[in-house]
Amino acid sequence: MPDRVYLDWNATTPLRHEAREAMTSAWDLVGNPSSVHAEGRQARRFVENARQAVAGAIGALPRNVIFTSGGTEANALALSPGLRAASGRAAERLLVSAIEHASVLAGGRFGRDSIGTVGVTRSGVIDLDRLAAAVQPGPPALVSLMLANNETGAVQPVAQAAEIVHAAGGILHVDAIQAFGKIPFNLKSLGVDLITLSAHKIGGPKGVGAVILADGVQGVAPLLRGGGQELGHRAGTENVAAIAGFGAAVEAISGDLDSNTNTCRLAALQNRLENGLRQTPDVVIFADKVTRLPNTTLFTVPGLKAETAVIGFDLAGIAVSSGSACSSGKVQRSYVLDAMGFGAEFASGAVRLSMGWSTTDADIDRCLEAWRKLAGTLLNTEGRNTA
Amino acid sequence: MPDRVYLDWNATTPLRHEAREAMTSAWDLVGNPSSVHAEGRQARRFVENARQAVAGAIGALPRNVIFTSGGTEANALALSPGLRAASGRAAERLLVSAIEHASVLAGGRFGRDSIGTVGVTRSGVIDLDRLAAAVQPGPPALVSLMLANNETGAVQPVAQAAEIVHAAGGILHVDAIQAFGKIPFNLKSLGVDLITLSAHKIGGPKGVGAVILADGVQGVAPLLRGGGQELGHRAGTENVAAIAGFGAAVEAISGDLDSNTNTCRLAALQNRLENGLRQTPDVVIFADKVTRLPNTTLFTVPGLKAETAVIGFDLAGIAVSSGSACSSGKVQRSYVLDAMGFGAEFASGAVRLSMGWSTTDADIDRCLEAWRKLAGTLLNTEGRNTA
Repeated sequence: MPDRVYLDWNATTPLRHEAREAMTSAWDLVGNPSSVHAEGRQARRFVENARQAVAGAIGALPRNVIFTSGGTEANALALSPGLRAASGRAAERLLVSAIEHASVLAGGRFGRDSIGTVGVTRSGVIDLDRLAAAVQPGPPALVSLMLANNETGAVQPVAQAAEIVHAAGGILHVDAIQAFGKIPFNLKSLGVDLITLSAHKIGGPKGVGAVILADGVQGVAPLLRGGGQELGHRAGTENVAAIAGFGAAVEAISGDLDSNTNTCRLAALQNRLENGLRQTPDVVIFADKVTRLPNTTLFTVPGLKAETAVIGFDLAGIAVSSGSACSSGKVQRSYVLDAMGFGAEFASGAVRLSMGWSTTDADIDRCLEAWRKLAGTLLNTEGRNTA
Repeated sequence: MPDRVYLDWNATTPLRHEAREAMTSAWDLVGNPSSVHAEGRQARRFVENARQAVAGAIGALPRNVIFTSGGTEANALALSPGLRAASGRAAERLLVSAIEHASVLAGGRFGRDSIGTVGVTRSGVIDLDRLAAAVQPGPPALVSLMLANNETGAVQPVAQAAEIVHAAGGILHVDAIQAFGKIPFNLKSLGVDLITLSAHKIGGPKGVGAVILADGVQGVAPLLRGGGQELGHRAGTENVAAIAGFGAAVEAISGDLDSNTNTCRLAALQNRLENGLRQTPDVVIFADKVTRLPNTTLFTVPGLKAETAVIGFDLAGIAVSSGSACSSGKVQRSYVLDAMGFGAEFASGAVRLSMGWSTTDADIDRCLEAWRKLAGTLLNTEGRNTA
C-alpha cells in the first residue's frame, strides 16, 4: 500500500529482512528437529542457534528458553501454579497488575479464586505499596508485571517490584513483549524469575514467542503435552522457520540495543510527535509523568471518539490504533485507562500512535497534518464546545 | 543436501512452492488482523481466505475452522471436556484408541481418571467390539480415533466407529493429520463431529494446524485465553503467514485429492518398495492385512535394531524413521506395535519408510539397494541366525 504511514507498531511490526532470510533458509530444510537423520539434525541446529540468540539477548542460559507459538501462549505457559525459584516455595496464587495484557489478566492456569489484581497510579505504573500489601500476607504468590504497558508505553518499576516480591517469598514474571527491542534490559538487571517475549513485536515473524527462566526456576507445567520437545516443556513439532526468524530478528536488534541507537532515534521522533499534538488545546498524553517507551504515545482530547478517529486517520492514510489491537477487530474502551482512574470520556477516546525503526520525521509530520484536519472536524461536529 | 533420499514424510514434508508464495506475500503485509485499519483488514483477508480453503477441503463451514499453532495444539484443544454435538449431551469422559498420537494419548484437559483406552487388533485397527463395550455404559464419552496411524499407516474404520459412538450418545473426534492429502475424505463421509489437521504434513508450513467442527458442535473450551481471535476459541495474534501457507497447501492438494492422482502414484511406489523388501527373508510389514495409507510402510526383520538401521540408512544417504519422530530425538520402542500385540523383538526393530509427492521410482530403488547392504551387515552381525 503506497503512501501509507504505519503508526501501529505495538500491534505488529514489519518483518525484518534478516528474519526473512533466516526463514527462507529454514524452508529449504525438510527435516523434523526430532528426527535422528541428517535432515533432522540440521533442522535441530536452526532451532538451537535461535535459542542461543534469544538467551544471549537477555542474559539467560539457552537451556532456559522455551519457545512457544507467541506471546499469548508464552504468558499462558508462564502463569503456571507450582512455579518456584531455586530456593523458593511453589506459587499458590497469582497477583497481576490491573494493566496487564489480556493474556495475563486471563490468569493462565490459576483458578479464578486464586487471582488478585494490584492497582496502578494515575500515571500508569503499578502502585508498589499496594503490591507490598497484597504479596506479603498469605501463601507464596506468582506476581505478573509487564515491563512496559502496550497502550500507554509506561515503563513499570520492575526491579523494585522484584525486591518486594522476593522479600515476601514470591516469584516474579515479567511480560517484556512490548519493551523488548525498545529499551535495554536483561534478566539480571531486572532481578526477575521469568520473562516472556514475542517475535512479531521486534521484526520477527508472527507465531513465535518464548518463556525464559532465570536459572533454577522450576515448575513450569506444560500446556501442550505428548512429546519431549523444548525439554518437555512444550510438545509439538517446532516451528523451525519461525524460531529461526525470531533468532535472526533478535540478533538484528542486539547491536541497536547495546548502542541505544534505536531508543534515541525513537525518542526524538516521539518528541516531535508530542510537541505537535500539544498544539491541540486540552490534549492529554497519558502516562507522561513517568518513563515511557520511546515509541508509544497514547493521547486524547475530551470529546474525541476513538473509533471515529482511528477511521479518520485510516482514510487519511495513517494506520493507528485505539488502545490494544489484540482483541477482535472491535474498538473497545481502554481497561488500562479505566485502571488509571480515567472516566469514560477519556477511556473511550484514546488513540495510540506507536512507531518503529522505519518511522521517519516525514511520517510524523504527515500524521500531525492528518490530526490537525481530523481535530478540526471531529472535535467540532462532536459538539465538544457545547458540553 | 544433494543426493539424499528423503523417506520420512510422515515426520514432516518439504514446503510446497504454493505455500512459500502465499507466505512471502503475507510477509509483505504489516497489519495485525485484529486492527481496524486497512493494513489490519488486509491481514484479516489472508486469514479468512485460508479458512475458506481449509473448510472447503473437508466439507466444513469456514466459521467452524479454528486455527492453532499445529497438530499438537489442535488435538489438545479438541480434547475438551464439555464438548457436545448439536443434539447431544456434554462429554464427561474420554476414550482413545491405544495407537493414537502422543498428543491425543496425553488426554487434553480430561483428568487421568476419566480417560479410557480402547485396544486395537494385531492388524493395527481399533477393535470395534471393544469400542462399543467401552462407549455404551457410563456418561457421554468423547472418543478420539485417528483416521490413519502415523507409524503403520493403517486406516481406521472411522465411519463405523462414528455410528457406534453416536448410538451411545457420544461424540467423535478424528485426528486426520496423517491421512489428510493422502486419501480423500470429508466431515460428512466420515460422519464425525470434529477433525484435527496439521499443515506441515501436506506441504504447508510447520506451526499451524486446525480444529474443524461439524456444524452445531459446541463446548470447545479455549486453551489460550485473553483475546477474541478465532471467534473466541483461541486467543493470540494470528500467525497470518503460516495460515496463508496452510490455505495455499490445501488448495494445491485439492485437485490431486479429487482426481486421486497422488493416491494412485503413491500406491504404485509403495508396491515397488514392498515387493523389494519382501525379498528379505522373514520380513514383516505391519498392518499389511488392512487398508493402509499409500505412502507408509512400517517393517522389520526379527533381530533388527531400529536405531542401528536408521543410522545405517542415514549414512547411506536415506532419511528414514523408527516409528514416531514426534518425541525428542530418541529412538523409542513403538507403543503402536506394543498395542498391536507385537513383543519387544518386533517393537524395537521397526523402521518406517514414508513417501510423498516428489518421491520417485529411483528413490525407492536407492532405498532398496541401501537396505540390501544394511540387511547383509546388520542381520548377520546382530547374530540373527544364531538365535
